[in-house]
Amino acid sequence: MSEFDRGTALTRHVEEAGRYDGELGAGWQIGGGVNGGLLLAFAARALSLESGRHPHPLTISGHYLSASRPGPATVRTDVVRRGRSLTTGTAVLSQDGEERLRVLASYGDLGALDGEVHTSAQPPLMPPPEQCIGVEHAPKEMIAEAALLARFDLRLDPATVGWALGQPSKEGRIQGWFRFADGRQPDPLALLLVADALPPVTFDLGMPGWAPTIELTVHVRAVPAPGWLRVVHATRNLAGGYFEEDAEIWDEDGRLVAQSRQLARAPR
Amino acid sequence: MSEFDRGTALTRHVEEAGRYDGELGAGWQIGGGVNGGLLLAFAARALSLESGRHPHPLTISGHYLSASRPGPATVRTDVVRRGRSLTTGTAVLSQDGEERLRVLASYGDLGALDGEVHTSAQPPLMPPPEQCIGVEHAPKEMIAEAALLARFDLRLDPATVGWALGQPSKEGRIQGWFRFADGRQPDPLALLLVADALPPVTFDLGMPGWAPTIELTVHVRAVPAPGWLRVVHATRNLAGGYFEEDAEIWDEDGRLVAQSRQLARAPR
Repeated sequence: MSEFDRGTALTRHVEEAGRYDGELGAGWQIGGGVNGGLLLAFAARALSLESGRHPHPLTISGHYLSASRPGPATVRTDVVRRGRSLTTGTAVLSQDGEERLRVLASYGDLGALDGEVHTSAQPPLMPPPEQCIGVEHAPKEMIAEAALLARFDLRLDPATVGWALGQPSKEGRIQGWFRFADGRQPDPLALLLVADALPPVTFDLGMPGWAPTIELTVHVRAVPAPGWLRVVHATRNLAGGYFEEDAEIWDEDGRLVAQSRQLARAPR
Repeated sequence: MSEFDRGTALTRHVEEAGRYDGELGAGWQIGGGVNGGLLLAFAARALSLESGRHPHPLTISGHYLSASRPGPATVRTDVVRRGRSLTTGTAVLSQDGEERLRVLASYGDLGALDGEVHTSAQPPLMPPPEQCIGVEHAPKEMIAEAALLARFDLRLDPATVGWALGQPSKEGRIQGWFRFADGRQPDPLALLLVADALPPVTFDLGMPGWAPTIELTVHVRAVPAPGWLRVVHATRNLAGGYFEEDAEIWDEDGRLVAQSRQLARAPR
């Protein structure tokens, strides 16, 4: 079983309908908490198990309520509506009775959608993975703060890593190649993690430090092809102590497989 | 009282905590249902009334579950967490016991945020309102289908209305000036309506017809200045029968006051 599947593994509660229990692994920590994308995937797996013939999160929003810690976690799901093409539900992820994450999502079957694609979006231009900057080159302090980096084969575009050398571009853009270090192939659930896997885009604005997510919404638009993903994180508007972070995820076939936006608190 | 305030007026239920009742007005219809932005504002007002010192929706997501009709509507709110700077809650908008809209949102006080703005986003370039195309020039069939247009002083950029003459640009972009016809000034709640006020951006892809919203998320980033708003709707990815529609709303001071994204079903 892959690290990601183990990290989001759930056991259905025998008595309480819609409840699932699992364990948040220490290997998914970042900055003292558990990565927000992993938490979203954890809750999303529970909803997927309840969604019957609609297994994929087409659009999912999570609001982060308190910092998660490694250890047991419970997801309580509630299916709000079962429609012909969509199932909508909510999920509450809690630890020791304290709510960590509240989720609202609509699920569908990406495999059943027709194949038409009219897109003006273009995949980002970046050098091939072997010419990008691997995690092994990240500052030691950063790796120490971000255990989850060991699970990623993440290669950042050299054009967007000036911040690591004290020369942020100030453009608010970080992009790179992503795959799981253990070879697990991407799927719709994993894209929820990938949408929050890159360093905060505020690094590129010259603002190092922790940027806690308030809310993260991901649209999963297609089942990704096996292989590398290209991920672009960008922000255009940092104001009043908050910023938006948009992510686009492209698969190896050049398809835009997910779009996400989060509202986050700017580093102090 | 303005049309918008009347259209989102709520009465607190005397016995049931967190419940509000109101009336969805026939004047907010579009394509046989009530406009999704108005519904979001209707539910958001209820949450605002429950959010105490955090009156503004900083980030709000709504999932549309069934078509709303003019008539009585009930919003049941549930505050999930009251924090120092944010209050998170859910709302259920229903009619005759049938759920129409499920909302998850985090509220704050935009007036209390510090004034720093680092933005690379630029307001859209478009001719002044008097050189744009008013609703009075819209095709009659369109006005008949969209009662709510009478409540808007909406002036579309001539460069993005080719679709009305059978010449869609295929760029997937519609932009224009917005204000309420009755002179009501914009505020954070009204921005939720404005985010869904323009014609579907699929018109500009040469796809006329109804594009039902699955989910709409709005980030309100600042209290808008009085006067005109500039609104840009754009899509980049129509695939498998769904498309995303991003909106940006700029106020008269040139400030990006809201960013939104919806997932919608493409017209057949």
